[in-house]
Amino acid sequence: MNKISKYTDCLPKGFLAFGLNSGIKKGKKDIAIFYSEKPAFAFGLFTKNIVKAAPIIVSMDHLNENHKSIRAILANSGNANACTGARGIDDARSMCNELAKYLSINTNQILIASTGVIGKFLPMDNVKQGIKRLSSYILSGKNDYLSAVESIMTTDTFPKIFCKKFSIGGREVTLSGCAKGAGMIHPNLSPFHATMLCFIFTDALISYSLLQKAIKKSAQSSFNCISVDGDTSTNDTVFILSNGIANEKKIVGYNEDFHKFQRALDEVCNELSKMIVRDGEGATHMIEIEVKNAKSNLEAHKIASTIATSPLVKTAFFGQDANWGRIIACCGRSGVNLDPSKIDIYLCGVLVAKNGMAVNFSEDKLKDLLAQKDVSVVLDLHRGSSGIKFYTCDLSLDYVRINANYRT
Amino acid sequence: MNKISKYTDCLPKGFLAFGLNSGIKKGKKDIAIFYSEKPAFAFGLFTKNIVKAAPIIVSMDHLNENHKSIRAILANSGNANACTGARGIDDARSMCNELAKYLSINTNQILIASTGVIGKFLPMDNVKQGIKRLSSYILSGKNDYLSAVESIMTTDTFPKIFCKKFSIGGREVTLSGCAKGAGMIHPNLSPFHATMLCFIFTDALISYSLLQKAIKKSAQSSFNCISVDGDTSTNDTVFILSNGIANEKKIVGYNEDFHKFQRALDEVCNELSKMIVRDGEGATHMIEIEVKNAKSNLEAHKIASTIATSPLVKTAFFGQDANWGRIIACCGRSGVNLDPSKIDIYLCGVLVAKNGMAVNFSEDKLKDLLAQKDVSVVLDLHRGSSGIKFYTCDLSLDYVRINANYRT
Repeated sequence: MNKISKYTDCLPKGFLAFGLNSGIKKGKKDIAIFYSEKPAFAFGLFTKNIVKAAPIIVSMDHLNENHKSIRAILANSGNANACTGARGIDDARSMCNELAKYLSINTNQILIASTGVIGKFLPMDNVKQGIKRLSSYILSGKNDYLSAVESIMTTDTFPKIFCKKFSIGGREVTLSGCAKGAGMIHPNLSPFHATMLCFIFTDALISYSLLQKAIKKSAQSSFNCISVDGDTSTNDTVFILSNGIANEKKIVGYNEDFHKFQRALDEVCNELSKMIVRDGEGATHMIEIEVKNAKSNLEAHKIASTIATSPLVKTAFFGQDANWGRIIACCGRSGVNLDPSKIDIYLCGVLVAKNGMAVNFSEDKLKDLLAQKDVSVVLDLHRGSSGIKFYTCDLSLDYVRINANYRT
Repeated sequence: MNKISKYTDCLPKGFLAFGLNSGIKKGKKDIAIFYSEKPAFAFGLFTKNIVKAAPIIVSMDHLNENHKSIRAILANSGNANACTGARGIDDARSMCNELAKYLSINTNQILIASTGVIGKFLPMDNVKQGIKRLSSYILSGKNDYLSAVESIMTTDTFPKIFCKKFSIGGREVTLSGCAKGAGMIHPNLSPFHATMLCFIFTDALISYSLLQKAIKKSAQSSFNCISVDGDTSTNDTVFILSNGIANEKKIVGYNEDFHKFQRALDEVCNELSKMIVRDGEGATHMIEIEVKNAKSNLEAHKIASTIATSPLVKTAFFGQDANWGRIIACCGRSGVNLDPSKIDIYLCGVLVAKNGMAVNFSEDKLKDLLAQKDVSVVLDLHRGSSGIKFYTCDLSLDYVRINANYRT
């Protein structure tokens, strides 16, 4: 009870959320609404995967038509509504129509997102009943952020919510985000695309163009820098909604207010990203990979992402084995034309390779450090002044167990 | 005994091979020689990984100096001699010097290859003793192909040898190849590069330029089309040696003799490639992925390779789960700009998706088919007439167990 109210306090002013079981999944919450009492500015980042789920196509349409007047996000788990053709798109539109009818808003004021199994049609009778019940809760002022976030979980083991409060013109504003992760996680952002199921809400009053710029920038250094399994989903989506009811002084220029907003948004996106990695399917470690002194962020990203998706590196971390040879081999196949004899590698702060060669270190001491939940790799390339931090998790026996029988 | 002699019969005329334990590994064979009684034409394909092991650098030098007069391949397992700097290169050169001294040949008539742990120096006293013993066996005419191939095994569970006999100008010629695989397997061939430890021997008399052309072509559709874990090694090498003592009629043009040679070489490379995948670390299934009716071989390769390296796809095959949604998601993130609504997918011959959407099939029947050792995926893109076959294995619990503690 305490936990629920804590999370509900997390939502910015003017937002309500609720989630419940509609029968898509057996016995678990599977459908949620995130509702804004006032029309909100909204921006979406969508998966780069060209196999795009029906809800993404419908949400893109609604944003094109009505991005300055969004009232709700409708989201479900248990079924991705992907590879479902014209019927899948009809289903996604029907869901929006139903919700619009009950809430007396327009269909294109609703964004929609789905996650779960690919290639199956939604059980629309159940879904429609669920939407009816969700609407009645929201219309009676019910607010339960945690239940909504639990409703979008798939193989996640904990709900992912992060909240940041700060002040603009003397008024407290709130930025709050929630996310689901666990599997099929490898964001690959371009300015208009992303691969993540993440909803961010704020009551800050900010111009639409700055809202857009801020979320693109935050996403680049957060969702763009994590991987669980290297697999980019057909469904992932980032939505940000701003209803502007907290502060009277609108954020319109690149001033200190905007920087405050950007910093808070960076923090929300980073914390949610790390939660997703920590809760990666079967993860026993979160691995922070820092590539330092690269010639560009792009080359640092290429190297970090190659390391982060290597099954050999990820299993070595599961085994708490200081196998830096696999890490340097990743540098060599990353496509960056670097000089391996200049690379220094640190594992959990311990220098294990200098100038691309082994140095002496205490295997026992390092084994203890590698047993920690959060571990780190630092690569110093000694060839520039750019760098990046990338987050991944280890590849464990449980990862295989979870994914060998996901559908059945 | 019968097995050993069978394998030894496999070697072409004029080649001897022997392997033994030198103390690099505890109790297991770890060093081998493949010896040609006559100087042989030799060509090498090397890893594209820019972190290159010392033996690769030394072998490249020797091929540059002496590619028409190679007498031996010296190979060890248990230590990759990679990331070992100038000392590693000195060690590789010393190994060649020692062997040259005992066999009374030139140092640059020897090719060298290593496989095993990265970043450790070779125990040179043991290695030199081993080379001395190998030399005395070879000088006394000992020939044990199987022991040599066993000496290059790492996590391999069986030795990989394939032999093909055919006739040129009425004379029987032999093409025989051996390989080691199991882990860090993801060949990425360019005309002059490859990523595989594979040695091929022939007594066929063929011009140097045709030998080169033939191995490049064979490698493209074999080693280039397999993956175990997506990790390209620092050490992988393909050597082909031709001593030309079997046939008097030299293969010099693109005639039927050359086509016979090419077909035999294709078969040797394909069979060895499949053995490597079947014996991939922890593999319980070999998965053949055929991409049909693509616009080009390149796009077919991109899609097949994305599927072949997806942990989600590979764990689903381990679980014998017909999760075609993960396969189509790979198509979408492969970088090929295709129309997902034209893709048909077959698993073990059963149509599971048509026009990018689910079709009805018997889950029980397919579950039985997916329980077989060799399983297949066919993707029909319906957009061209090119295609490719790619081979990978599933991602099992044993893969994680093997790799979590490889070094220790």
